[in-house]
Amino acid sequence: MTRIAEVRVTPILISDPPLLNLQGVHQPYTPRTIVEVVTENGAVGLGETYGDTDYLRLAEAFGPRLAGAGLTVNGLLPAVTECLAEVGAERVDNTVQAEGLRGSRTMAKIASSVSSAFEVAIYDALGHELGAPVHALLGGKVRDAVEYSAYLFYRWAEHPEPDEPNDGWGAALDPEGVVAQAKRMASDYGFSSFKLKGGVFEPAREIAATRALAEAFPGQPVRLDPNGAWSVATSLEVAAALEGVLEYLEDPTTGTANMAEVARKTSLPLATNMCVTAFDEVPEAFGSRAVQVVLSDHHYWGGLRATQDLAAVCRTFGVGISMHSNTHLGISLAAMTHVAATIPGLRYACDTHRPWQTEDVITQPHTFSGGKVAVSDTPGLGIELDREVLAKLHDRWLGSDVRRRDDAAAMRRVQPDFTAPMFPRW
Amino acid sequence: MTRIAEVRVTPILISDPPLLNLQGVHQPYTPRTIVEVVTENGAVGLGETYGDTDYLRLAEAFGPRLAGAGLTVNGLLPAVTECLAEVGAERVDNTVQAEGLRGSRTMAKIASSVSSAFEVAIYDALGHELGAPVHALLGGKVRDAVEYSAYLFYRWAEHPEPDEPNDGWGAALDPEGVVAQAKRMASDYGFSSFKLKGGVFEPAREIAATRALAEAFPGQPVRLDPNGAWSVATSLEVAAALEGVLEYLEDPTTGTANMAEVARKTSLPLATNMCVTAFDEVPEAFGSRAVQVVLSDHHYWGGLRATQDLAAVCRTFGVGISMHSNTHLGISLAAMTHVAATIPGLRYACDTHRPWQTEDVITQPHTFSGGKVAVSDTPGLGIELDREVLAKLHDRWLGSDVRRRDDAAAMRRVQPDFTAPMFPRW
Ligand SMILES: [Mg+2]
Ligand SMILES: [Mg+2]
Repeated sequence: MTRIAEVRVTPILISDPPLLNLQGVHQPYTPRTIVEVVTENGAVGLGETYGDTDYLRLAEAFGPRLAGAGLTVNGLLPAVTECLAEVGAERVDNTVQAEGLRGSRTMAKIASSVSSAFEVAIYDALGHELGAPVHALLGGKVRDAVEYSAYLFYRWAEHPEPDEPNDGWGAALDPEGVVAQAKRMASDYGFSSFKLKGGVFEPAREIAATRALAEAFPGQPVRLDPNGAWSVATSLEVAAALEGVLEYLEDPTTGTANMAEVARKTSLPLATNMCVTAFDEVPEAFGSRAVQVVLSDHHYWGGLRATQDLAAVCRTFGVGISMHSNTHLGISLAAMTHVAATIPGLRYACDTHRPWQTEDVITQPHTFSGGKVAVSDTPGLGIELDREVLAKLHDRWLGSDVRRRDDAAAMRRVQPDFTAPMFPRW
Repeated sequence: MTRIAEVRVTPILISDPPLLNLQGVHQPYTPRTIVEVVTENGAVGLGETYGDTDYLRLAEAFGPRLAGAGLTVNGLLPAVTECLAEVGAERVDNTVQAEGLRGSRTMAKIASSVSSAFEVAIYDALGHELGAPVHALLGGKVRDAVEYSAYLFYRWAEHPEPDEPNDGWGAALDPEGVVAQAKRMASDYGFSSFKLKGGVFEPAREIAATRALAEAFPGQPVRLDPNGAWSVATSLEVAAALEGVLEYLEDPTTGTANMAEVARKTSLPLATNMCVTAFDEVPEAFGSRAVQVVLSDHHYWGGLRATQDLAAVCRTFGVGISMHSNTHLGISLAAMTHVAATIPGLRYACDTHRPWQTEDVITQPHTFSGGKVAVSDTPGLGIELDREVLAKLHDRWLGSDVRRRDDAAAMRRVQPDFTAPMFPRW
């Protein structure tokens, strides 16, 4: 079979609206890394991952090592891990940067996040070579469309500086604003389940917003995710207030022991993308019944096969599975959709930030219909790179000094004394 | 992509030497089911599974339902399970037939054993359609050859009736016979690890044979598998006698609680293909640390993807993985080799009965070199059906009334009062 002739790694900056979370606010521009794996036959496979310096540097160091390799994904992670040991990573205080929103920052997670971009790109290239959709290379789809949920955020109308991107969605800082945002999400994209990113305001305000959502969309699933902002006691108060209202409560508190204590004392299922973010965190969390739903994420779990592995582990232990999302573009949405299509028992709508992104690097951005993305049956991921846009967004990266996502720094532009909170915040 | 045009299911009888185990002795002929999945383009995919009536009947009922379906494997098991609910299975006392050698007989395991044959055949067909080896469709090989162990048996020289097949290996009923068998296995096939099927004689005799093996092959891995024949107390006596001798002790006793008790009191790792034989048996066994190595088997675990799933579960919980084998032919050996080639961290040589089989249904039976089978890089499984042999072995099936494996019945031809023992035997 054909081999890999060339790998291209391109850092870009994409515009991002001022979405609020525990750590601060999204920056006007956020970095992503775009990976292209080119075969000897000229087929191009696409992958996408975080663009923060550590990830980019590792991707740039690893990419050239794939030249001459086969289109195989097993063995990728050990090779990337070895590369990371050589190139190293920055020392970054985990408490003051946005990476903490997906659990602890570890070398292993940096390696798997970069490995996943190459894995997706290799699957895409392999699909083009073989004339098979990626889902067929993952065992085949068990559904024709994947359901996503509306990812609701407290947000400002605009970034602080006048020349910064403005997406026109307006502010959402109270229950009315959140419900209005949800209604537009429902009407524009057809979403019928809703997740509110919490941890921004004191719990009472977020309980009120959650209740307002449940009232506005009776019988439709609603979730709340404060990113571990609360103590066990606060988590239990919120859980008591929202029993019967929430589909699940996501990461109310940090740490397996705290999550397990909350889980023991509430009937609400607890979901997580902070307490279980790598395979080595599974045994303790499952053994202590700390979580009832794991939000997979092919980026930091290490790829599409790893996502299927995680799903198998969850299925084996009777733990539910859904999907987490950070800011991403259409390459990752395609990858998420292909792998989600192959996972039996995916009973929860997956998260996606995609509607918040006004830019994309693919020629035909995905559309949501009834909250769902159709599973492509064309070869590979079923997408094509828009080289003009890629060049433009890369030029933006070249002309900027934004090199990583730092929600706290973005918040300090408005609130100079802001620091990301110590846990628990409330 | 092309679809499935036709499915052929062929029962055969293959000759089998008089290998002894707890349940009796292998019959002169044992049934297997051969599955062919034919695509609209005429590509043929091969699969192989148990030939006992329940499995055959289910395969025959399910096969035609695949006509018109795509070459996809996700969703196969639920469809086979539904089919089994319709066609039913015989009521068979689990204690008196050989199926018990792989744990409890369940409807779920019958369904997964049949589903796996179709899964393998679909992967083989897909590989031929795409021009890709099966391992590439499973994420790619991480090794170029798969190591197998010599599967040693106490055995008679011949079956009781004069016209029954005689493979010329001669008897092995004492330490000298077992060591001689092992030496021929090492010289003919290059095996460098050894597994003795125990549970045949009282433990002291099997300890002696195991020690003799360890002395004959210093520094090479030796395993002993009495198929759960022993009580906890006996297991601990044997374990104490063989600490420092065995690589692992396989299923010394039955049941998760007993295995866990033995595991707590010995430093020998315990392996199993009886205590953990399905995903729903994993949580209790792993939670109680009852087993340190799970022997996968793509037949009853439900296929190649399921085997990868099991490997992921084991990896996540720090439990080792190896591979179990029942009597099988080259189709299954090809499938075992492809999937084993994709599993990272496979540190134990896999079991195979293949050297005991003097017949095969493929045109170029595999060869073992240094105990290893090379991983094929040609399309599909890399094998071809020998239709002449298939027809001959099917004719044998038609002309015989052997419809299932029953080691106890075979033993009764020599020992009329034999019944498969109650557990524990010793
Ligand atoms: Mg979350
Ligand atoms: Mg065994």
